Amino acid sequence: MKFARIAVTGVDGEEARLVVVQPEAQRVIDLATAWRLRLERRGATREAARRLAAALFPASMSAAIALGETFREAAAEASAAPAEEAVHPLESVRWLPPLDPPTIRDFTAFEQHVRNMAARQGGSVFPEFYQRPPYFKINPLTIVAPEAEVPWPHYTHHLDYELEIGLVIGRQGRNVSPEEARSLLFGVTILNDFSARDVQGPEMSSGFGPAKGKDFATALGPWIATCDELDLDDLTMVARVNGEEWSRGSSASLTWKVEELVAYAACGETLWPGELLGSGTVGTGSGAEHGRSLQPGAVVELEIGGLGVLRNRIGQPEPPGWLPQPRRSSATY
Amino acid sequence: MKFARIAVTGVDGEEARLVVVQPEAQRVIDLATAWRLRLERRGATREAARRLAAALFPASMSAAIALGETFREAAAEASAAPAEEAVHPLESVRWLPPLDPPTIRDFTAFEQHVRNMAARQGGSVFPEFYQRPPYFKINPLTIVAPEAEVPWPHYTHHLDYELEIGLVIGRQGRNVSPEEARSLLFGVTILNDFSARDVQGPEMSSGFGPAKGKDFATALGPWIATCDELDLDDLTMVARVNGEEWSRGSSASLTWKVEELVAYAACGETLWPGELLGSGTVGTGSGAEHGRSLQPGAVVELEIGGLGVLRNRIGQPEPPGWLPQPRRSSATY
Repeated sequence: MKFARIAVTGVDGEEARLVVVQPEAQRVIDLATAWRLRLERRGATREAARRLAAALFPASMSAAIALGETFREAAAEASAAPAEEAVHPLESVRWLPPLDPPTIRDFTAFEQHVRNMAARQGGSVFPEFYQRPPYFKINPLTIVAPEAEVPWPHYTHHLDYELEIGLVIGRQGRNVSPEEARSLLFGVTILNDFSARDVQGPEMSSGFGPAKGKDFATALGPWIATCDELDLDDLTMVARVNGEEWSRGSSASLTWKVEELVAYAACGETLWPGELLGSGTVGTGSGAEHGRSLQPGAVVELEIGGLGVLRNRIGQPEPPGWLPQPRRSSATY
Repeated sequence: MKFARIAVTGVDGEEARLVVVQPEAQRVIDLATAWRLRLERRGATREAARRLAAALFPASMSAAIALGETFREAAAEASAAPAEEAVHPLESVRWLPPLDPPTIRDFTAFEQHVRNMAARQGGSVFPEFYQRPPYFKINPLTIVAPEAEVPWPHYTHHLDYELEIGLVIGRQGRNVSPEEARSLLFGVTILNDFSARDVQGPEMSSGFGPAKGKDFATALGPWIATCDELDLDDLTMVARVNGEEWSRGSSASLTWKVEELVAYAACGETLWPGELLGSGTVGTGSGAEHGRSLQPGAVVELEIGGLGVLRNRIGQPEPPGWLPQPRRSSATY
């Protein structure tokens, strides 16, 4: 199944609705509406049906996934023969990010990307890459929806995209083996880790890792496909900028496999439903690897087989804002 | 006011309750209970009073803070002359973490700590420290309550503590000046950024920043004091291990002031109520600065004037678990 979230206008403004996406039928199915109608047919009052449907299919995808098998089974049932009232044509939907993850761990798991980035500065792959899959954490509150504009922060002159696979956790787990890790996965989506290269560099050289260089925007979507729909080890990944192909790769070239990323994330930390892991950028999957950068107004499309197209336009730079005044070293202790 | 969360046993198991802490009266006041009783006195039915009280004082502190002035005013009113039923003696409470933050940005804002850490390896402060306040993000799902045991991950032999101030965001804001930043702050608490030093080092040298070295546990609490209760520029900070003082410092020695940390966090990113910023470790505020480390069973107490004592015992090491098998470089592209 393919899950997403769309925006509809309710009495108190915009609200999020969980949907099942059927691209072949060019439609999405509003799960809460379909379930409500099903309950009404089984004798529930409108109000009681609404209450139960909202608890089963809440606005939060993470909260829905946390219901475990119950959510998946009910979604399959709700979308099997939906009433017309629950169906929206695909071209009319306003996408929201398909997931509201409590955390995003963004790995770097493709050697070719690391090698390409290092080579541009005359270096080679940093040795730690071969010891364990490195990752940092992205701000989960700055996720950008499919088709939404990407804000251009005032502190950067160099924006770039990153073509990644997003891995969605489905079950609680801690200290698992890679074999067990696969069962913790709910599904996958496309992730664009927008990056301010002129800020990311100094941040990484400081040892603290990317922060302002990555936290301003991460695009996700358009939908999450459950793992049974795909071969995770053979996903074709493509990026286009203004219609021109800049990047092409495959999940087959992962140095650290998906199961290892999940198992490593679960080392000494409990993973929870809805947490998101990024694979890191596939080889050639960024402008920086080609000496190119994004301009305001550019349209970036990421496409992964079975996961649709994640399209975003780059916004105009924000007006200048406050930045810290550098300090001088003080050695008075 | 001082806010915290405590655990009580309900019909369906343990639940979180928001309380106002009055250390001088050796008591806490359950806000939802106090508010429910107040509503009942004003003619509400028990059920209706419960519903409104739970919406105003939910289990989530972040959700409560997001109510803005309404939350603070109601809390003041509820705790002014509470009914006996809403009062618990301080010594009987089971603390929960006072906050459930959606994100934790952990800065390093005390030059002396950075200098001390560098000096142990024969180095000096990294130059980026003087350009902007560096930070990384900690897993917000592994917060440890006051008095709770700290898990010892299987992948480390070297555990340490870090004595920090936790800054709680109270209002939405983006691209603000330091002058405006103060108004975004809700309050402060004590933060112990437990660290696996043998893992943190290689992670920082990789450029991706701390991950497994920090994400396994962060202690918070026991309470959040609102900013009007304290002089943020003059907080005395002390750490004791097994009763022996290891660390002593003051917020007066912050290189990057609290307002600058908040303003920098809001550069190009919208801050939301309940987000948490760590000040970074005060000078002398870790074992590593003294060449010392924690042993299983050690009791770590952090004390900051007006914020109480955050006490945790270090657990026994987890049994050995899976770790990634190192890769060999492949240069076949």
